[in-house]
Amino acid sequence: MSIRIGIMGYGNLGRGIECAIRQNADMELVAIFTRRPPDTVKNLTAGVNICHVDDVLSYQDRIDVLILCGGSATDLPTQTPAYAEHFTVIDSFDTHARIPAHFEAVDAAAKAGGKLAMISCGWDPGMFSLNRLYAGAILPSGKDYTFWGRGVSQGHSDAIRRIDGVLDAKQYTIPIDEALERVRNGENPTLTTREKHLRECFVVAAEGADKARIEREIKTMPNYFADYDTVVHFITMEELKRDHSGIPHGGFVIRTGKTGWDEENTHLVEYRLRLDSNPEFTAGVIVAYARAAHRMYTEGMRGCKTVFDVPPAYLSPLSGEELRKNLL
Amino acid sequence: MSIRIGIMGYGNLGRGIECAIRQNADMELVAIFTRRPPDTVKNLTAGVNICHVDDVLSYQDRIDVLILCGGSATDLPTQTPAYAEHFTVIDSFDTHARIPAHFEAVDAAAKAGGKLAMISCGWDPGMFSLNRLYAGAILPSGKDYTFWGRGVSQGHSDAIRRIDGVLDAKQYTIPIDEALERVRNGENPTLTTREKHLRECFVVAAEGADKARIEREIKTMPNYFADYDTVVHFITMEELKRDHSGIPHGGFVIRTGKTGWDEENTHLVEYRLRLDSNPEFTAGVIVAYARAAHRMYTEGMRGCKTVFDVPPAYLSPLSGEELRKNLL
Repeated sequence: MSIRIGIMGYGNLGRGIECAIRQNADMELVAIFTRRPPDTVKNLTAGVNICHVDDVLSYQDRIDVLILCGGSATDLPTQTPAYAEHFTVIDSFDTHARIPAHFEAVDAAAKAGGKLAMISCGWDPGMFSLNRLYAGAILPSGKDYTFWGRGVSQGHSDAIRRIDGVLDAKQYTIPIDEALERVRNGENPTLTTREKHLRECFVVAAEGADKARIEREIKTMPNYFADYDTVVHFITMEELKRDHSGIPHGGFVIRTGKTGWDEENTHLVEYRLRLDSNPEFTAGVIVAYARAAHRMYTEGMRGCKTVFDVPPAYLSPLSGEELRKNLL
Repeated sequence: MSIRIGIMGYGNLGRGIECAIRQNADMELVAIFTRRPPDTVKNLTAGVNICHVDDVLSYQDRIDVLILCGGSATDLPTQTPAYAEHFTVIDSFDTHARIPAHFEAVDAAAKAGGKLAMISCGWDPGMFSLNRLYAGAILPSGKDYTFWGRGVSQGHSDAIRRIDGVLDAKQYTIPIDEALERVRNGENPTLTTREKHLRECFVVAAEGADKARIEREIKTMPNYFADYDTVVHFITMEELKRDHSGIPHGGFVIRTGKTGWDEENTHLVEYRLRLDSNPEFTAGVIVAYARAAHRMYTEGMRGCKTVFDVPPAYLSPLSGEELRKNLL
């Protein structure tokens, strides 16, 4: 029997989930829940119910896993605990500093409702976290580094758009090759924020706007840009739409570590992602973990889980026997 | 309380395990078991019992995990099932085609003895297998490739040494850059054996030996070299000892896959290892999984397990709370 999926929130991530479900024969999309008037939402899959969020509880017996596609800033901190009491849920909560608090809230709700919840599934947190854990457990005497990009940072793009005279903007985070090479060489460098990443901005200014002032405001913006080397390009709206409409991302998790009686040998573990579409890859991770969440719930597990708690075999539709034969 | 470890077999891997235990504060090496006369074995850690293999059963109450460091060809197929009945055991059985049969034998033995056994822990099988599984679950519409090297193949080095007139030899397996780049570009190429790896041999010939004949015998050797482009260098014994005494290895697991409603987006997942010492890195993996095996046994799990069955958190000495706070 298929795993019946509900999608809560139909933006880029929700659409990515819908596409990913199409690639997984053991999954079925049952319903999409939205805060918009349902008849204004056009989805891709035929025969899916488009419902208002207020109707979600009526789907308790028709959905195995509810995938929460809201944002980490305001949606998920309330949504995930609220729905974890009624459904097996999964989210991609990605505010690293607030993960412990989110875990506690979701864990309490899931246990109260006798459900299982999976939080912070994606690539960071998610696949990158797993690689930090695995490499660190194997090479305890070592150091790991995470680099992001080349990719679009939504938060930084938004920050530029709020500047007076800016019509639209896209910001790319770019890892600096020299820093990557120093890490790969096993130098264990101490890298400043500026040495790790470059910020490249493509900005559409309003007619007659003071570009020098806009560039200065970007480059000196605290937290977002002041600690980085930042490159600003002014382009036309046509150029922005033509060349910068994608949402690529990616990055690297690298650990180098020493082994041997006198730690005389050096090892490199490197995990790299290069993603054409950040939300669609994130959706791929979430859908695999939705499969795992359903299986763990079915086996009787309850409460909040993360990627650290999931036996890898649970992500795959293949049996243990098939996995050992074909992938081990 | 420390996890008490026994090492069965004291060669390169056994010594690597001993070194790895030194780096893990929650582990303690209790005993080393050997087929040699125990008083001829010189180990590194002070205060460890060096025992004959015949005495291993007397250690049942003093050892939490017995790490089996024998070879996959003749030792492990009998050793792992034999000891799985009496100890929580872990091995690095790496004959991929025989893993299902090995699993069955070990599973039956471990269940008969009420124990837990972990097989095929290392980097391939092991970390590479995990990366094939994770990437395949996330990107079901895609293809994965495994490249090995640059690294020493013991089997190929041995095959050269058996040729008449060869005193010693070392063979390196080298992934071919052009093939790697085609895979990274998402071309999904069909690659022949010859297109994926090059074999480079460093050979010490006996005085007066016919080098042309040796080179021809290497390059035409079925299974080992005939399907590859092979480069042969004749060097002196001094050069071999000076430049080729290490046991480096490594490789790449790369998966590219498509997402989107019409599979219009491409993603790359790449996992890379570059290892100064193949046995010491393998030992690092085994020791982390020994921790997991002990915890799984303590929680009541029984039978044979592989890396696919282990929740990643079990590899780490850190608590779930610490992992979520620091690594997620």
